[in-house]
Amino acid sequence: MAQDDIARLIQLLARLPGLGPRSARRAVLEMIKKRESLMQPLVKALAQAAETIKSCSLCGNLDSQDPCGLCRDQRRDQTKICVVEEVGDLWAMERSGAYNGLYHVLGGTLSAIDGRGPQQLRIDRLLARLEEGRVEEVILALSATVDGQTTGHYLVDCMARFDVTLSRLAHGVPVGGELDYLDDGTLTAALKARRPL
Amino acid sequence: MAQDDIARLIQLLARLPGLGPRSARRAVLEMIKKRESLMQPLVKALAQAAETIKSCSLCGNLDSQDPCGLCRDQRRDQTKICVVEEVGDLWAMERSGAYNGLYHVLGGTLSAIDGRGPQQLRIDRLLARLEEGRVEEVILALSATVDGQTTGHYLVDCMARFDVTLSRLAHGVPVGGELDYLDDGTLTAALKARRPL
Repeated sequence: MAQDDIARLIQLLARLPGLGPRSARRAVLEMIKKRESLMQPLVKALAQAAETIKSCSLCGNLDSQDPCGLCRDQRRDQTKICVVEEVGDLWAMERSGAYNGLYHVLGGTLSAIDGRGPQQLRIDRLLARLEEGRVEEVILALSATVDGQTTGHYLVDCMARFDVTLSRLAHGVPVGGELDYLDDGTLTAALKARRPL
Repeated sequence: MAQDDIARLIQLLARLPGLGPRSARRAVLEMIKKRESLMQPLVKALAQAAETIKSCSLCGNLDSQDPCGLCRDQRRDQTKICVVEEVGDLWAMERSGAYNGLYHVLGGTLSAIDGRGPQQLRIDRLLARLEEGRVEEVILALSATVDGQTTGHYLVDCMARFDVTLSRLAHGVPVGGELDYLDDGTLTAALKARRPL
């Protein structure tokens, strides 16, 4: 039977998203098998990350320096801010390589059900960044869900007094997507936003 | 963009079985969100496990003491040894709660394809335990695969010179299994081993 150290490790690992008790057990066995090449580096990397990583006070990104690497990078377009819900969304945008401006992480969406109001999000800090006057365009890259769109509308209201261009991501057929599998809402949005050839 | 510490952590986590790059990213974000309650305890538990856990020199189980807790436990039946392939299988047997003897972890199966011969398994140590003469029954709890069964036959040959009862797990319909979904081999085995009512 797994004795206490192992049991505790499995229990903690099983709390990670995407892992349950069974896969946590497999992960622990794999780690113990590859102690030198996997477990010890992982301990080090985790300890270091737990120590050094913090939220950027400007954009909300995670980094070991504050302001974060993206906010410091003068090669990035300082006149654009892309508003995302979570750090994971920021990473997704960066992976696409299609955007070269700054970011702002809200920390979630407004949600009546979860009781998240504007105070819980980093909206005031977004407005403070706009006050500085350098930003010319704000791109809302929020989820195409009810909460995401509500948050978008609220942000548009908040930002009305600034002289900035507001935009949002296009809705439409995902690249590689088959029409047959798309929901009606997406098809309707894609048809409405059709582009001349 | 994930900077180096985070990227390295994600890369390491993604090497665990059951996790890919995407779920490793989600796991890292979750950990950073729950730094106090999840990440720091995980660092501690991992470091401690990496430090203390070793293979039991008798049975091959993992524990922080050697011999392991199972081998030391005098309440367990010292006359039975259950032979399993991997530590995970030992844990599965223990979870079932149906067995109260000792174990022996082989460390895999014989495999012509993977080039694993008897020397790579802990067979000699199993025979050494039998030499001591206290063991009365050896139960082979090996996978019902070709490699598992080959290993079983080989072990039976090795143990022929000892005066011990040899047995293997029964084959048959898994509890909760529906006949319609069972393969022919299992059905044939279950029919052959039918029990009087």
